[in-house]
Amino acid sequence: MVTINDIMSYCKRKGLVFPSSEIYNGFAGFYDYGPVGVEIVNNIKNEWWSSTVRNNENVVGINGTIIGNPKIWEASGHVANFVDYLVECKKCKQKFRADHLIEETLKIPTEGMKTKELNDIIKKEKVKCPSCKGELGSVTEFNLMFKTNVGPSGQEFAYLRPETAQTIFVDFKSVLDTTRQKLPFGIAQIGKAFRNEISPRNFLFRLREFEQMEMEFFVHPDKKNECEKFDSVKEVKVNALTAADQEKAGKMIISTIGELVKNKTIKSKWHAFWIGYRYKWFLDLGIKPHNLRLRQHVKTELSHYAADTWDVEYNYEFGWKELEGIADRTDFDLKQHAKVSGQDISYFNEETKERVIPHVAAEPSLGVDRAFLTFVLDAYHEEEVKGEKRIVLKLNPKLAPFKVAIFPLVNKEGMDKKAKEIHETLKNKFVTCYDDSGSIGRRYRRMDEVGTPFCITIDGQTMEDNTVTLRDRDSLKQVRIKIKELQEKISKLVDGEKL
Amino acid sequence: MVTINDIMSYCKRKGLVFPSSEIYNGFAGFYDYGPVGVEIVNNIKNEWWSSTVRNNENVVGINGTIIGNPKIWEASGHVANFVDYLVECKKCKQKFRADHLIEETLKIPTEGMKTKELNDIIKKEKVKCPSCKGELGSVTEFNLMFKTNVGPSGQEFAYLRPETAQTIFVDFKSVLDTTRQKLPFGIAQIGKAFRNEISPRNFLFRLREFEQMEMEFFVHPDKKNECEKFDSVKEVKVNALTAADQEKAGKMIISTIGELVKNKTIKSKWHAFWIGYRYKWFLDLGIKPHNLRLRQHVKTELSHYAADTWDVEYNYEFGWKELEGIADRTDFDLKQHAKVSGQDISYFNEETKERVIPHVAAEPSLGVDRAFLTFVLDAYHEEEVKGEKRIVLKLNPKLAPFKVAIFPLVNKEGMDKKAKEIHETLKNKFVTCYDDSGSIGRRYRRMDEVGTPFCITIDGQTMEDNTVTLRDRDSLKQVRIKIKELQEKISKLVDGEKL
Repeated sequence: MVTINDIMSYCKRKGLVFPSSEIYNGFAGFYDYGPVGVEIVNNIKNEWWSSTVRNNENVVGINGTIIGNPKIWEASGHVANFVDYLVECKKCKQKFRADHLIEETLKIPTEGMKTKELNDIIKKEKVKCPSCKGELGSVTEFNLMFKTNVGPSGQEFAYLRPETAQTIFVDFKSVLDTTRQKLPFGIAQIGKAFRNEISPRNFLFRLREFEQMEMEFFVHPDKKNECEKFDSVKEVKVNALTAADQEKAGKMIISTIGELVKNKTIKSKWHAFWIGYRYKWFLDLGIKPHNLRLRQHVKTELSHYAADTWDVEYNYEFGWKELEGIADRTDFDLKQHAKVSGQDISYFNEETKERVIPHVAAEPSLGVDRAFLTFVLDAYHEEEVKGEKRIVLKLNPKLAPFKVAIFPLVNKEGMDKKAKEIHETLKNKFVTCYDDSGSIGRRYRRMDEVGTPFCITIDGQTMEDNTVTLRDRDSLKQVRIKIKELQEKISKLVDGEKL
Repeated sequence: MVTINDIMSYCKRKGLVFPSSEIYNGFAGFYDYGPVGVEIVNNIKNEWWSSTVRNNENVVGINGTIIGNPKIWEASGHVANFVDYLVECKKCKQKFRADHLIEETLKIPTEGMKTKELNDIIKKEKVKCPSCKGELGSVTEFNLMFKTNVGPSGQEFAYLRPETAQTIFVDFKSVLDTTRQKLPFGIAQIGKAFRNEISPRNFLFRLREFEQMEMEFFVHPDKKNECEKFDSVKEVKVNALTAADQEKAGKMIISTIGELVKNKTIKSKWHAFWIGYRYKWFLDLGIKPHNLRLRQHVKTELSHYAADTWDVEYNYEFGWKELEGIADRTDFDLKQHAKVSGQDISYFNEETKERVIPHVAAEPSLGVDRAFLTFVLDAYHEEEVKGEKRIVLKLNPKLAPFKVAIFPLVNKEGMDKKAKEIHETLKNKFVTCYDDSGSIGRRYRRMDEVGTPFCITIDGQTMEDNTVTLRDRDSLKQVRIKIKELQEKISKLVDGEKL
């Protein structure tokens, strides 16, 4: 099995991801994307934006600031509730996240446990410091928001946002006032968020600085089942683990979004639509179906704002873990902001003359970095081809950092000139890579390793009949194709056609 | 003349930009992009990335973190030097930026002045508090970096990066080690940066949180004139104000990049290439030539790291000000990081077996927000058409938030159905807008106001001959065109063809 460590060293070696500030021995919880990684990240964000905003007339985007008025986080409940539980070793002074320590030491779940319960378990089970076996102190709450001072007085403070969602709620009224959107509609955003994790871990899985892609879909509270798009997702096949099944230690079932609504496991059609739509997004972009599942939150783990939450989980080496969460956030946030700000944040229906606070029927929330990690992990393969090890990143062409590579067989007999001409034409349409050094086999391997789906070789025959070899990364199939047909062919291949 | 205030209220009214945290009375120096603004921002970033990275084989991208190891900012000189000069009123306790206060009160330039000089002027000229006429205290240095604590101990601290450039220098070695780039080559990045401005002002011009698009172009120190691309920019016509002309109170001249190199005003061809390339980018994207100029920094204002800097300036209502800076940063930063980190950050030439620290022959540095403000300001027009006021945003189609709008003349006789069909086809290729309410004239005005370059109307004739009206925002020209030709036509129009 490919481990997170394998992926981490692969990412570093091939310029996908570097530890931040590496020449200064790094900085825990922070990673930079290198030349290959940044292209994949941009592709993931484009695919998400295109699927969420472009493809849904009733979804608009915004892009808000990381730092805002600190009252936002009082209203949202983050000042009071956005805590992890910290425990310090009395002897070596190392600090740990109490719930993770208990889970790892005692192999029991701790979801939803707070200070007292965690403290009681540590005392009762005599959990010790995993480093020095010293005695542990008392569990304390640790707020995960980064704080900073703003302005020259040094007295104003602010938080770095721990989630992008609140920017959407705070801008809800402005969006309503300046667009002509009518309920139901969504507001989407891609942007950075920060959490001062006690122990960042698992490479890009839990970072202190990360990027989120979130959308809040606002619906009239009585119309959460009026979803004309529901039919488009009801056949989506999912692996599902319901809250009820978890409570009676039941197993994951194979189901469809339609069935989960029919048997009332998912309570509203709009929630179900976005769950299905998002699950399908991962499948369409190539995640292997057996590595994905839906898991409903059990009561004790639901956030303070959520009526029901489903996670799209991925089967990582450290277990099934959240890849994306899709919550029904009700009217919690808008009501809180209306209360704390004293502003009217209701929606006015001009036909019925009714004012309502909409519900967030669905909030799909995905981390860019976790998505990146998962796409790369799922696509990474080590194979044996003709007795040689081949490392190949089988990324969906839409996510691949380079779509096409161009190789002259040799740098003479006009092949290099011809190859450069082809490169000039193609590079206006696709992200390309030009490589003229080493054997063709070696150049293929280089491209396989960074996931380039299509390679073009210009050879002797090209000079005679204006055809080139087009080679497919996954099937290894090679076909000859006319130069003038290349651009259209590659477009189609990137869109999913097979060679 | 269109003022910044006009643009600010326009941006708010049409959903381009909202004050951040507006329901909480905002937060000075922070703005959010709304549904229309975010699309323009994304277009600006795409055009920059495509021009800088895609279009130059020897430029690669990265995407690094905002927070990194604090040693970065010791090495870069920001801990010691990244200060503004603060002066407080002894009476009303208000704080001001000393240099701005002197410039505004005494109308004299203060570029390059430090604590002592500013203090001396304030004492000598008896500058008073502009609010209450109280006496001012002593000038103090104020570091503009935001600081925060990282990790559970509360003892580790870090800065929010005040520029993206340093992330590039810190990752230089990793990029060298993992790509096959040879000198000369560039590393580009788009990302957020933060400066705790004493008095943020002029809407998006000076923000506390902003986004930068920066590129560092690394060249062998002896080869700053070996630029094979130079010819492609030498005819670029510029308004130029040289350092020498400023010193003898000379005027702006009309010149070309080629001439400025020939007469040794710009010292290296690689620096000149990027100055010309970037200047042309603004012209190509529609900035009016008379609103742009190049201004060379005079000695006293050069940053501690720069050998020569040229600003692309825009003619704002508050004067000619920096839109983009293009500095020759020499080897200052790489050398500093090598020294402070103790790492070897040199470039090894395999042919000559020589190790060198490359020079940054050019660092084009542009704020996304300032670019946004400038493109919108330059494109905003109030016109009179047939006795009615028309507000029109004449953005280059590539930057326009929506490329095309689709209107059924009436919502009956099949026109609505036909219009929706057309919309479905076009929305996969372009960002579109569907509008079926109000008179066609009113719909045109709505689209003009957010800069939609092309509008399609489906009318009675459409139902007979499958043609539609295609209308151009700027010329107001209307032509009939076959539905099946729409997609290709709009592609060409967005690429610059005239209707």
